[in-house]
Amino acid sequence: MLTQDVRNTLFDVADLNQLKTALNRLPEVDVGEFISDLSPERRAIAFRILQKDQAIGVFEYLPPEIQEELIGALHDTQVFQIVEAMSPDDRAELFDELPAGVVKRLLQRLSAAERQATAMILGYAEGTAGRVMTTEFVQLRGGLTVEEALNKIRLTDQDKETIYYAYVTDDNHKLVQVVSLRQLLFSLPNALIHDIASDRLIKTRTDMPQEEVAQLMKRYDLLALPVVDREDRLVGIVTIDDVVDILEEEATEDIQKLAGVSGGDEAALSPPWITIRKRLPWLVGVMGLYIGAASAIAPFQKVISLVPVLAVIMPIFSNTGGTVGIQALTVTIRGLGVGEVTPKDTLKILRKEILAGLGTALCLGLTMIALSLIWAAPQERWVALVAGTVMAMNVFVAVTLGTLLPMAMKRLKLDPALISGPLLTTMLDAVGFIIFLSLISFSLKVMHLNP
Amino acid sequence: MLTQDVRNTLFDVADLNQLKTALNRLPEVDVGEFISDLSPERRAIAFRILQKDQAIGVFEYLPPEIQEELIGALHDTQVFQIVEAMSPDDRAELFDELPAGVVKRLLQRLSAAERQATAMILGYAEGTAGRVMTTEFVQLRGGLTVEEALNKIRLTDQDKETIYYAYVTDDNHKLVQVVSLRQLLFSLPNALIHDIASDRLIKTRTDMPQEEVAQLMKRYDLLALPVVDREDRLVGIVTIDDVVDILEEEATEDIQKLAGVSGGDEAALSPPWITIRKRLPWLVGVMGLYIGAASAIAPFQKVISLVPVLAVIMPIFSNTGGTVGIQALTVTIRGLGVGEVTPKDTLKILRKEILAGLGTALCLGLTMIALSLIWAAPQERWVALVAGTVMAMNVFVAVTLGTLLPMAMKRLKLDPALISGPLLTTMLDAVGFIIFLSLISFSLKVMHLNP
Repeated sequence: MLTQDVRNTLFDVADLNQLKTALNRLPEVDVGEFISDLSPERRAIAFRILQKDQAIGVFEYLPPEIQEELIGALHDTQVFQIVEAMSPDDRAELFDELPAGVVKRLLQRLSAAERQATAMILGYAEGTAGRVMTTEFVQLRGGLTVEEALNKIRLTDQDKETIYYAYVTDDNHKLVQVVSLRQLLFSLPNALIHDIASDRLIKTRTDMPQEEVAQLMKRYDLLALPVVDREDRLVGIVTIDDVVDILEEEATEDIQKLAGVSGGDEAALSPPWITIRKRLPWLVGVMGLYIGAASAIAPFQKVISLVPVLAVIMPIFSNTGGTVGIQALTVTIRGLGVGEVTPKDTLKILRKEILAGLGTALCLGLTMIALSLIWAAPQERWVALVAGTVMAMNVFVAVTLGTLLPMAMKRLKLDPALISGPLLTTMLDAVGFIIFLSLISFSLKVMHLNP
Repeated sequence: MLTQDVRNTLFDVADLNQLKTALNRLPEVDVGEFISDLSPERRAIAFRILQKDQAIGVFEYLPPEIQEELIGALHDTQVFQIVEAMSPDDRAELFDELPAGVVKRLLQRLSAAERQATAMILGYAEGTAGRVMTTEFVQLRGGLTVEEALNKIRLTDQDKETIYYAYVTDDNHKLVQVVSLRQLLFSLPNALIHDIASDRLIKTRTDMPQEEVAQLMKRYDLLALPVVDREDRLVGIVTIDDVVDILEEEATEDIQKLAGVSGGDEAALSPPWITIRKRLPWLVGVMGLYIGAASAIAPFQKVISLVPVLAVIMPIFSNTGGTVGIQALTVTIRGLGVGEVTPKDTLKILRKEILAGLGTALCLGLTMIALSLIWAAPQERWVALVAGTVMAMNVFVAVTLGTLLPMAMKRLKLDPALISGPLLTTMLDAVGFIIFLSLISFSLKVMHLNP
């Protein structure tokens, strides 16, 4: 949020105290952005002049490659102070990026509790509740009074990611109840926790996929969701700020996969070689598919040279079929993504899409015939009827496949977004072209114009 | 989350007390889903047996058309109790859907404060901070002590959507500071609010678009964001649960617009006629575009009948160009959508995309030439060279347009997602086909095969 001008001025005056004062007044995320945009030398200087507490906060907002770079540029002690103060889930994320040797050295110096928390989080698979949870939460016993509970919360480390819920556990660390800070505040000081806490608990297991965690918290409007292990013991909580990030990440992945971008890792500002490396292998593959679909036309070259208007008509019904298919595909994938539909709705959706498909197919097919009639050479008008029919059929198949394929993927527990737009349109093209050209070829034979 | 079996059993035993007990134990959102899935008659019965507090909560989770239906089926007094107890932002949303007569009657019966709050929210444009904010928040004076502030919070209505932040205002209701419940809890009881509250305020204006509100709260990890009017007076707050919904809504809109679905209103489970009505007019328009692009081929029919392999090659480069263009378009639109890039990055992104485009164009063009050489009839191999060149050019133009068009839309303060995939591919097709066929035509002339 700082403009380039302020940036330059701050360094031009070379008054680091002034820079320090300016940065100290900014929110950590803005300081993080400011530092990320600097050159590596200036970056190390700017980071070193931050106050210790601010430096720790800012560090968590830096992108992994800059975190790694700074860890190389700072003294071991400075690095260690930052890493020790990070929350276990952010630390686990950093450790994923750092070279194994550095991680080992840092882990050895961590306190036993912090080391254990980080090791536990690193033990869960990426993209699960266990990996995005934090192990810092408020845990209470049911026998405490509200006053004792509030005092206990006051005494806990102020850095806990959330204190707005406290979790009540039994002797075996099993999660039994939840109480919000709001409930504590509104209750009599001598009331007992287990009397005011709620048994109506919404919780998740460590192995739940992060998108399901996000959907669950969204559904129940939760600020935090407790995570339990296989023995139902409380091991961590997922907080709402993580949910916001997960939802955006999952939406980006869906949207990019639909367009055939490999998803997740490519940002709009990635360097060009990353873009090429990410997209090219896939593009060559897709081109192969397109060539496969187009080669369905190759055997019909004689037909085309007899009726060249076919070359004009074919892209129209191929594009229209593709567009209709991608619409159905997009609505279905997004519906599955936001949890609005599940595989159990397959029949319901299929019925709807078949009806909608029939209606659309009829309208577009008739439009196609009408337009072709106006626009084809008189001796070629019979082609219009064939084109309209194939078009209607193509639209119908497109809508049905666009709906069924992602549903089938979901049923097979695969990612529905793997059915990308180009994959669907290629299938539609291949089938549509063969049927269309075969019909034309057959009609030519009937009319004794056998090619 | 209730299975169909439970549903049937609950009604089959016809024991409404049992149903009441069962529903009372469920979270409101689950009861809402259960009621939505019932037939209209059963729905009214199930809703009436809910306890009053639960009924109010459940009502806010019902879809607008079912809210409207229930309002018709319930007694005026019941309706009024529910509407009076709703939070002002949810009430405004409901009023948007109801017939004007019903709204007028309900508004007249509301208490002056509730009526004013609802009228204010309804006065802001849809999709702005003013429309999604709630007017229920905790407001403090700086001169209070922490103990007095906590007591004041205890005495406020427990239904306030969030009490985790309190806002400090001056004599003119101007927002001056913010203090979190956490800070209050961790401070000495006799400390003064204006000493512990923070001046580092992040706030928004009533007319800020909702997606920018969501991005702001995401950036600063806020649970609530204060909304001020033009005179900087505090008028409401936006809470994190709204942000989660806004982010999903905006992502769905982007993803649907890219596929050319008109966006927002169409759900995967909409009835077929809604689907047809939503998609058909646009599809006919797109088909018109496709026909326009294809008619670029029409004048070249003689060339095609001379060199029919063109009909095989053209779909390949049209599809490849389209795919590359949609990739660039998707990455740019999503980047703009999540606030990762802004129009000021246009030059940076253009440089990157031109480099990536050149690389991709070179690779794909060469692949195309190689494949065409293997696969064309010997006397048609010269076509391969032309095809490869046009393909490389097409890919380059596709990447550049896919990036620049949405950036230009954003600069013009229009929605970048209005540049949908089909629109881009049609433009690419029209230009690509004309250039390709003109080049082939020219080559034929040079080779004295003038058509």
